[in-house]
Amino acid sequence: MTFANTRKVRIEWADCDPAGIVFYPRYFEIFDAATAALFERALGITMYQMFKTFKSAGYPLARTRARFVRPTRYGDDVTVETTVTFGHSSFDIEHRLSHNGLTCVECAETRVWVVLDPADPGRYKSQPVPEAVREKFNRP
Amino acid sequence: MTFANTRKVRIEWADCDPAGIVFYPRYFEIFDAATAALFERALGITMYQMFKTFKSAGYPLARTRARFVRPTRYGDDVTVETTVTFGHSSFDIEHRLSHNGLTCVECAETRVWVVLDPADPGRYKSQPVPEAVREKFNRP
Amino acid sequence: MTFANTRKVRIEWADCDPAGIVFYPRYFEIFDAATAALFERALGITMYQMFKTFKSAGYPLARTRARFVRPTRYGDDVTVETTVTFGHSSFDIEHRLSHNGLTCVECAETRVWVVLDPADPGRYKSQPVPEAVREKFNRP
Amino acid sequence: MTFANTRKVRIEWADCDPAGIVFYPRYFEIFDAATAALFERALGITMYQMFKTFKSAGYPLARTRARFVRPTRYGDDVTVETTVTFGHSSFDIEHRLSHNGLTCVECAETRVWVVLDPADPGRYKSQPVPEAVREKFNRP
Repeated sequence: MTFANTRKVRIEWADCDPAGIVFYPRYFEIFDAATAALFERALGITMYQMFKTFKSAGYPLARTRARFVRPTRYGDDVTVETTVTFGHSSFDIEHRLSHNGLTCVECAETRVWVVLDPADPGRYKSQPVPEAVREKFNRP
Repeated sequence: MTFANTRKVRIEWADCDPAGIVFYPRYFEIFDAATAALFERALGITMYQMFKTFKSAGYPLARTRARFVRPTRYGDDVTVETTVTFGHSSFDIEHRLSHNGLTCVECAETRVWVVLDPADPGRYKSQPVPEAVREKFNRP
Repeated sequence: MTFANTRKVRIEWADCDPAGIVFYPRYFEIFDAATAALFERALGITMYQMFKTFKSAGYPLARTRARFVRPTRYGDDVTVETTVTFGHSSFDIEHRLSHNGLTCVECAETRVWVVLDPADPGRYKSQPVPEAVREKFNRP
Repeated sequence: MTFANTRKVRIEWADCDPAGIVFYPRYFEIFDAATAALFERALGITMYQMFKTFKSAGYPLARTRARFVRPTRYGDDVTVETTVTFGHSSFDIEHRLSHNGLTCVECAETRVWVVLDPADPGRYKSQPVPEAVREKFNRP
């Protein structure tokens, strides 16, 4: 099951480094926001409301890998296409960031849904994504 | 002469700290982008094109001051109203960031227009904002 | 009563923008860390331990103002001198960031000590800085 | 040929998100600074001086991948061990970030050395790492 979202993002001065191009950690901020936007679009509520509703402590990354093909610059309006595929207790996200139709960055990440560990408050433990969340991604 | 712009900004997870609210340096990134958006709206070209066209090296801050009235959180859609007033060789920017009509942050900054110093490449020197830039802000 | 701390900070590539100089919101991150270092030096415990020990939810900014006198660049080792003065329910912090003895940025901020509001969990309310914290700053 | 560097890094409040742990894009900032520190240690000059001396425009990422094993929190003093292996026109960097001896994040990145393209100023092109840079990494 795959669910997709597409959004436009403006590359800002804040995102760029002395070489005049995006400082790559900022791409991961863009991808993190794209993941949030995907969930928000599927669920119809914000990430803040989602975490509150489902008593989640977030969906931290387990792994990420990215390939940087073409640089982007401040003032560029780029497109981020994001898809998600759910596994048993984790989910895979893919992002493709493009400018004028050309791929600039590709990223694949694996995230886990976590809750506060009742046995050790202040620590997190992974848990299957709630069915009530997952089924929202099944809508045609 | 005052020129104004208003924009919506989504507060992201990336903007927030362990207290769950915006980490205040991120407000300055939001304000920096709001200043760029103001110039872009007045000139009809991006900041990148503006700097290239006018051989500017940017408009660094000389001073800023901000007052933090109410916190904002990820998922909040805030409004940023920005106005500019031009002086001789600098300009003053005011930002008001609000959520649901309530002021959250007020900021006043003074910026200078700089170019590369021909006498010392790698250094910057201030210079009056080009007339061709300023007059764009005079349109009713 | 004034308490001071001095630390060296390396300006990193991550701190700089397409003009090759520090992107000013990053100065506020440097100052935020300098405030944490001041408390850590006075108390002998980390900020994380301090917030836990005193059930604090942080010390958010009420106001800040800064003056940017000289730019700094990646590779610069700058000095940050920080002083604190306690008021009744807030405290004032001053930072002076210098390079090779020359002032680059001056900043004055007012912070408030906050705790979770028992009447409205998820909200914060200000409270006097605990005496056990303040007295640590009285040591000669 | 492999060259290594180890450094201590303090996790700051600025690095952490509403879950109270490091916001993962900040690890990439830490790794970026660790790469700079590695080059600085090998060459005995800062990244700024290195880029100036060798007319480089930087060493942007081609690929990165990371595995997040254990979270870290503000106040943690973590260790970053970085190694580099040079290829023909690129180099591979590996980072291991640990806390109290336990691996928290592992990262492997491939970077390319770039210069301004004389045929198209404003664009970059890759080029072998200068021999004068590489030989500094051969010292026992």
